[in-house]
Amino acid sequence: LETLREDELLALASAALEGLGLPREDALDAARILVMGDLLGIATHGVSRLESYGERLLLGGINARADIRVEKVAATIAKLDGDNGVGTLVGYRALQAAMAMARESGTGIVFARSSNHFGPIAPYNYLAAQEGFASVIGSNSSPTIAPWGGREARVGNSPIGFGIPNPGARPIILDMASSVVARAKIRDALKARESIPETWATDRDGKPTRDPKAALDGFLLPIGGYKGYGLALIVDLFAGVLSGAAYLTRVQSWIDVPEEPQNLGHFFFLVDTARLGDPAWLAERIADFTSLIRSTPLADPSQPIRLPGEIELDRLERHRRDGIPIDVQLRDKMIRFAALKQEKAP
Amino acid sequence: LETLREDELLALASAALEGLGLPREDALDAARILVMGDLLGIATHGVSRLESYGERLLLGGINARADIRVEKVAATIAKLDGDNGVGTLVGYRALQAAMAMARESGTGIVFARSSNHFGPIAPYNYLAAQEGFASVIGSNSSPTIAPWGGREARVGNSPIGFGIPNPGARPIILDMASSVVARAKIRDALKARESIPETWATDRDGKPTRDPKAALDGFLLPIGGYKGYGLALIVDLFAGVLSGAAYLTRVQSWIDVPEEPQNLGHFFFLVDTARLGDPAWLAERIADFTSLIRSTPLADPSQPIRLPGEIELDRLERHRRDGIPIDVQLRDKMIRFAALKQEKAP
Repeated sequence: LETLREDELLALASAALEGLGLPREDALDAARILVMGDLLGIATHGVSRLESYGERLLLGGINARADIRVEKVAATIAKLDGDNGVGTLVGYRALQAAMAMARESGTGIVFARSSNHFGPIAPYNYLAAQEGFASVIGSNSSPTIAPWGGREARVGNSPIGFGIPNPGARPIILDMASSVVARAKIRDALKARESIPETWATDRDGKPTRDPKAALDGFLLPIGGYKGYGLALIVDLFAGVLSGAAYLTRVQSWIDVPEEPQNLGHFFFLVDTARLGDPAWLAERIADFTSLIRSTPLADPSQPIRLPGEIELDRLERHRRDGIPIDVQLRDKMIRFAALKQEKAP
Repeated sequence: LETLREDELLALASAALEGLGLPREDALDAARILVMGDLLGIATHGVSRLESYGERLLLGGINARADIRVEKVAATIAKLDGDNGVGTLVGYRALQAAMAMARESGTGIVFARSSNHFGPIAPYNYLAAQEGFASVIGSNSSPTIAPWGGREARVGNSPIGFGIPNPGARPIILDMASSVVARAKIRDALKARESIPETWATDRDGKPTRDPKAALDGFLLPIGGYKGYGLALIVDLFAGVLSGAAYLTRVQSWIDVPEEPQNLGHFFFLVDTARLGDPAWLAERIADFTSLIRSTPLADPSQPIRLPGEIELDRLERHRRDGIPIDVQLRDKMIRFAALKQEKAP
């Protein structure tokens, strides 16, 4: 591990994307979200994603020279065509368009299509909150979950993120997928030779299982059973169906066919909280809200009660102060991507 | 049980609210949501709620002559003061205000405060969908859930509902609370002397339990653990904090202090889908979406795969055709409430 400052990591990730063919400004905007992911400690969705983005850019599966177009169809609705660009670039531009509408009219929603994996959601919610916008942001994804009662993956483990600004203090951010756990936790159980709770996954026949091996051959279970399944469908209806993107099994897998466009969809909904009251009013209410939560008697005295996003925002502070730990192999990969530009130059 | 036609039930519920002191037009609007609840088969949140609403109206805990005011603070944001009126009246008026803004500008959000229990959410999502609006609607509620890691109820089991219009066919509607199950299911297990899954509830010390009796003395668990806890907080932040209403433990219990205003809050967010494409475009996409779900191979051949809201929309059709079964004692209660008007007349 090597420790990089935020500006160093942003410069490196941005240079990598430039090396992979993106125009300078696009490379910088696409890198912002990934670096923010690392700042928040969501390393699985940070600059480490440049490996798969890079592979797909080199194969032509992602368009390095995307012509992103925003079509405003109402005072507060825009449809965005991502032109199969890097997902974090599409997402960053969609967020900007939603902020412009919400600043003007109070709310704004952008529906993005022809996109790709757009990183973690928390960075978008965080950036919106820092500007005073409450946000609901979601994306669809290639299918990994069986419909409730089914035994074939047809629904994406589609993430949704919420952000509430907290003027002068930390925002509240919840970034969640529909499954009870990520596959990685089941892999960990298998390695540790432990059984898993029967709410985590089914076997390949769609039956709940406690056997991690059977679970890895089967399907992740959504939170709350049919509730989480329903939530995953709603996210896909907003992000995929309403946006004009692909949805459910029409979304291509970036793992199986990295050379194909995925046509992922996202939505970005913002509300300008400054219209509801002045910043001091909101700050006071959120301070009271959080203190009511934190003062709850504890079930386990060693485990404090946390607010959504608190762990990530702790890391953000630490990483801004002490730097961000980055895997040396990943750093070298980014350097190699960045060097591609020189190779192509005349 | 007696079977009433929709118009008969609406007339009776409306007369009951008039008898309880509401002006005629307000009584009708407040009754619409409850009757729609019964039509959808959500009987626990239908006209049966008139018993508790009636008790509180008679005690002065709910204001029969509420002066509901809508203050537009941006082109697409309104703050609504419910003046402690019947929650379904406040909700119905808030929905109308949100539709007006969304029709004009594409989206609209209404934040309602000084309200009370506003019935089930599915009727609001349904009415919005019938007019072409996708919707996200939520309310807070008095606390019944402990924060994740806590052992005292400080968070409401706050419901959130989503609706997607499907031009010419059935909308997709998801109306869910944050808990894995309702308390009634734990009571059923106790009666049947069965243990419950450890994901349903904790005992009074905040420890997960399989004993239904300990669970009833303890707290409902949210879906997906900290995810559902986070979702319940987000709903309360939108419905309670941003709206200017009470939140968390600041919400009064209608059971413990029925004579006090609750100051519940709600939010109603709508998007006009007609701006995104013509109705045939959307209908075709949703038909494809639903057929991809329904054609999934089944885990249990006797259990078909359902879309969110399907069971409720089946009941809506049946109840509109065959009438709505209503408990005779409930009918008589409504008749007695309706008669209060004559008693008070000079």
